[in-house]
Amino acid sequence: MKTLVGIDDIASYVPKLYLEAEELAKARGIDPNKIVKGIGIEQLSIPDVYEDAATMAAMATLRLMEKNDLQPKDIDFIHVATESSPDAAKPISCYVLGMLEQRYGGGSFAHIGAPETKFACVGATYAMIDRLAYLASGWNQRKYAIVVGTDIAKYDINSSGEPTQGAAAVALLLGKNPRLMVYEPAFTSFGTVDDRDFFRPIEHTTAVYDGHYSIGCYLRNMRIAADAYKKKMFNSQGLKTLQSSLNDQIDLISFHCPFPKMVEYAFASFLIHDWRGLPKWNKLLDSTGPEPDRAGMSDIEFYISKKYSAFRKNFTKTKEFLHEYEEKVVNSLSALKLIGNSYTASVWLGVINQFEKQRDDLEGKRFGIGSYGSGSSAIICSFIVQPGYKEVVTNLNLMGALSQRHRISIEHYERLHNRKLELHESILPPKNEFTLDHIGKDRNNIGYRYYKFIE
Amino acid sequence: MKTLVGIDDIASYVPKLYLEAEELAKARGIDPNKIVKGIGIEQLSIPDVYEDAATMAAMATLRLMEKNDLQPKDIDFIHVATESSPDAAKPISCYVLGMLEQRYGGGSFAHIGAPETKFACVGATYAMIDRLAYLASGWNQRKYAIVVGTDIAKYDINSSGEPTQGAAAVALLLGKNPRLMVYEPAFTSFGTVDDRDFFRPIEHTTAVYDGHYSIGCYLRNMRIAADAYKKKMFNSQGLKTLQSSLNDQIDLISFHCPFPKMVEYAFASFLIHDWRGLPKWNKLLDSTGPEPDRAGMSDIEFYISKKYSAFRKNFTKTKEFLHEYEEKVVNSLSALKLIGNSYTASVWLGVINQFEKQRDDLEGKRFGIGSYGSGSSAIICSFIVQPGYKEVVTNLNLMGALSQRHRISIEHYERLHNRKLELHESILPPKNEFTLDHIGKDRNNIGYRYYKFIE
Repeated sequence: MKTLVGIDDIASYVPKLYLEAEELAKARGIDPNKIVKGIGIEQLSIPDVYEDAATMAAMATLRLMEKNDLQPKDIDFIHVATESSPDAAKPISCYVLGMLEQRYGGGSFAHIGAPETKFACVGATYAMIDRLAYLASGWNQRKYAIVVGTDIAKYDINSSGEPTQGAAAVALLLGKNPRLMVYEPAFTSFGTVDDRDFFRPIEHTTAVYDGHYSIGCYLRNMRIAADAYKKKMFNSQGLKTLQSSLNDQIDLISFHCPFPKMVEYAFASFLIHDWRGLPKWNKLLDSTGPEPDRAGMSDIEFYISKKYSAFRKNFTKTKEFLHEYEEKVVNSLSALKLIGNSYTASVWLGVINQFEKQRDDLEGKRFGIGSYGSGSSAIICSFIVQPGYKEVVTNLNLMGALSQRHRISIEHYERLHNRKLELHESILPPKNEFTLDHIGKDRNNIGYRYYKFIE
Repeated sequence: MKTLVGIDDIASYVPKLYLEAEELAKARGIDPNKIVKGIGIEQLSIPDVYEDAATMAAMATLRLMEKNDLQPKDIDFIHVATESSPDAAKPISCYVLGMLEQRYGGGSFAHIGAPETKFACVGATYAMIDRLAYLASGWNQRKYAIVVGTDIAKYDINSSGEPTQGAAAVALLLGKNPRLMVYEPAFTSFGTVDDRDFFRPIEHTTAVYDGHYSIGCYLRNMRIAADAYKKKMFNSQGLKTLQSSLNDQIDLISFHCPFPKMVEYAFASFLIHDWRGLPKWNKLLDSTGPEPDRAGMSDIEFYISKKYSAFRKNFTKTKEFLHEYEEKVVNSLSALKLIGNSYTASVWLGVINQFEKQRDDLEGKRFGIGSYGSGSSAIICSFIVQPGYKEVVTNLNLMGALSQRHRISIEHYERLHNRKLELHESILPPKNEFTLDHIGKDRNNIGYRYYKFIE
């Protein structure tokens, strides 16, 4: 019998500060509806002055360990994915390990493996797959592995990316016979293309991006991966294209969410491609109008063309789309609307959110993951929800944490953004959390980050 | 029966330019013996103006694919480890994929996974273990995975690190029933400590390091990992500490090599720790003098203390040490002396070098890997050499490539180091290789790197 591996539990950490999207819109002289309705972001999570990607990762990991009563000896990997690492050589995972040892004792994690994975917003999904394979191979020496995704999306003031900023970390507890969901390795598929939609040259502090073009890359790579996923699943189940829909095989979905409207684009594009040619397709075209011709266009040119966008918009108004979207996708977005983009954490926040919001019995349901990272790679994979999920979901507490945040003014936001505050000048006093205490200034430690847990 | 996975073949790429250590020493007004004998470096590999960590990685991968007649469809992962990535968000693996598609056709690698791993000089070993586990789990969809380690060690002119600079890439072909060596997962051990011995804050172009302290970290972490490895192996083989030596179980070793003398320190420290308490130990102490007392000292304080260094120096003069060192280690260093530090590639260049230099029949021998990355983590793992190795080693060609390099003057070196040359002003004209062609300058692509294969 095959070893079943998957996600046993998930914890998250979201900064305690947030900015209202409306307030940002007013300050920038743009219509708030362009942010709130146009891209779907209502609030933006903003890290306090003593927070960075490492403190957020450590907080999510600590929560995961505490709520499961885990000790360092139970864990053989802490594998962190990020594109917000404070260091180009030292992995952020070691900073996280150092913070955790402040709670669990010096040397308590000396036995673990602690690599860092980098691949824009798909890094945590890559790391998760590798840790799951390690468990499935039987090479693990302890019961669990932890994968952490942590990121801060930061763009220039007044840039088009500014309203999509956000920050969060997730920590996935991976093990055999997991309580939450079992992974389905046989269907996992990649769609990888060398591209320039979003990147950050090592010497830049903010990313270079082409938002419109990146939407095309996201949709192109997701289609490549979904086609491969569909082929593997249909072969295994004896299903036939043009007769069956992949969508029918999937019950819940979480997509990478740079902004919530992108998830609507992604799901609509997925359904259009999945349903095209099925018996119901021609009837659907009656309400949407004909699909535009793509002759002579590259995938990206087609996906970002006005004609395709208009067609997709019509499609999203059909009752067929709306039914599927409400049923399978929309619950993944409630928290993401209040957080903004958290890069590699985002698709996993969507997973937590689905479990928190869904009221139906989910046991046995297939949960699809649509993960995308610029540069570029999409991963489509899936899990089967386990009976034990009911116990796990009582303690996810993402929406609860969001409701207790502190709203900050645009002035405070700008001071944080422009690094005008010293480490001790935090908006809120740190409490029960890891903080960046100081940064080295001597020849041998210039730029080194020293962290401290504040009771 | 368990699936056997491991390394089927290895390819390397070393820049065609080198600087004589003696010439560097003279220019800096230091005694050449301090470099050549003191740290063991004779020549330093220097990338030409159109080379970076991505072109080197692509070259090593292309060589690996060409010599094994591989097509993209045979490969399901190109997993690159580096601490010299040109980008903080986009993984270097996608740049590599883009270059390879110039040879194999656009879209030919769309099905692959392409993560980047970062952990200073131990990154490639982490990546290798994860890809091997993936193969062992049976989740791979193609026959092979490729792990690439690529790095450029660059320090400030006139700094203590300058004479240790170097650059290289290695590409490991991983698969089932490999020709070269089979991995032994059950013994693999980690020694991980959050530390500040060497790091590079994301805003710096060169690393911050404390060379002396880093030697202590290397030895401390390696001892933690070796103790764990020994325990697992001894338990599995029914061997007893104080009666048996781990060294007796290992036939060949490659250590991470920041400079060749460090490998002597590492192997000596390993043997001292391994042999302490064995029947032969007291006789050895007759020639070395007593081991110094370590009361009140931390591991690092002890390992970098003058008394321990003096004791270890005496130990390295014993015929017992010299016999083991000559037999098991020294062949890993011939190429590394002529390359300098290549960070995460270095331990694997040592492996290639062992196979090239060893004349004995190696079939069935155990090959130990001592991999270390600052920040910090050591991995000790091992392989068993397979009958097929004899076919593979005829085509490793590391020493041959080194013998065909072009010596550059200190003036050319400094111009390259200080980036005084434009991309078209290379020392040698590129031929049959990937080159950095130009760097984006527009709003949407500023800093993006465009690569081109030159016939």
